[in-house]
Amino acid sequence: MKKFEEKTIKTKEIYNGKIVKLQVDDVTLPNGKMSKRELIKHPGAVAIIPITKDNKIVFVEQYRKPLEKSLIEIPAGKLETGEKPEITAIRELEEETGYTTNQLSFVTSFYTSPGFADELMYIYITDQLEELKHPVAGDDDEFVETLELTLEEAKQYVEEERIHDAKTNYAILYLHALERVQSC
Amino acid sequence: MKKFEEKTIKTKEIYNGKIVKLQVDDVTLPNGKMSKRELIKHPGAVAIIPITKDNKIVFVEQYRKPLEKSLIEIPAGKLETGEKPEITAIRELEEETGYTTNQLSFVTSFYTSPGFADELMYIYITDQLEELKHPVAGDDDEFVETLELTLEEAKQYVEEERIHDAKTNYAILYLHALERVQSC
Repeated sequence: MKKFEEKTIKTKEIYNGKIVKLQVDDVTLPNGKMSKRELIKHPGAVAIIPITKDNKIVFVEQYRKPLEKSLIEIPAGKLETGEKPEITAIRELEEETGYTTNQLSFVTSFYTSPGFADELMYIYITDQLEELKHPVAGDDDEFVETLELTLEEAKQYVEEERIHDAKTNYAILYLHALERVQSC
Repeated sequence: MKKFEEKTIKTKEIYNGKIVKLQVDDVTLPNGKMSKRELIKHPGAVAIIPITKDNKIVFVEQYRKPLEKSLIEIPAGKLETGEKPEITAIRELEEETGYTTNQLSFVTSFYTSPGFADELMYIYITDQLEELKHPVAGDDDEFVETLELTLEEAKQYVEEERIHDAKTNYAILYLHALERVQSC
């Protein structure tokens, strides 16, 4: 869909970092006028909703520097170039939780913030978890702690805003909707 | 929550734009080592789920330059400095759809991408819409088209990825869960 397309006249790269790139584009608007667009380029990300045999959800708590606080989130990580999202999902699950799986179901995908960033988030779910016998190390600048919560506990954490990000709030609502169907 | 806090040693501002700021912080990790964090500062945003008297959802289609395509989204916009989110919600509703309301319910809030950005998204809902007698103009670099869809139509658009962003996918799932409860 190209409705109201904004044609690029010039692209200026401002920053090319480890995680994000920032560029500013001069564009022609649908009415012929000019404007500028600030664009963040991001490799995309993958998250997984891991459900244990006793029906708990596995979360990770980690410090989020942009917010200057820690959040409780479902396991997630950046897509590596050329990597299939399913592979990223299992890698992040293994690194962050010590579980693995060979069964993933796709839940949804969405752009996290399409007004200024191209980050696309993929979400998977599994209830087939196996504990890794030999835990694998994650990134050496990543510090996470896992916790396993019931859906009711997780909803309480949403209320308290300790769970407070798009993918995890979506995951809790998704499980809530599933549970409602099953209890109908 | 400050678990695994990363203390800032130095902040370098890279870019200070109209919508985003980019800074790179040198931080001390919990193990004492140093690392860098790329941080996008954003003023935050507000979205609204507008439900018409005949139970349709009002969406806007607009071009999203970071994605080089248009998406169908619930109405939304940036928070102005010091503005209450409820005020932003009604302003964006008026500018983008030609409706207004004096009754808003809070649905949720979430950080859209806490790994690299501090954008906090607030979501409201209303089923008390009034058509504005005198439509108000929006930003002069914003081109949007409204459309009103049933929930079933909106779910189909999610399947087709014409609806494909965090706040709108969340909104559809929220309405789906509500409907399930009502049909129980």
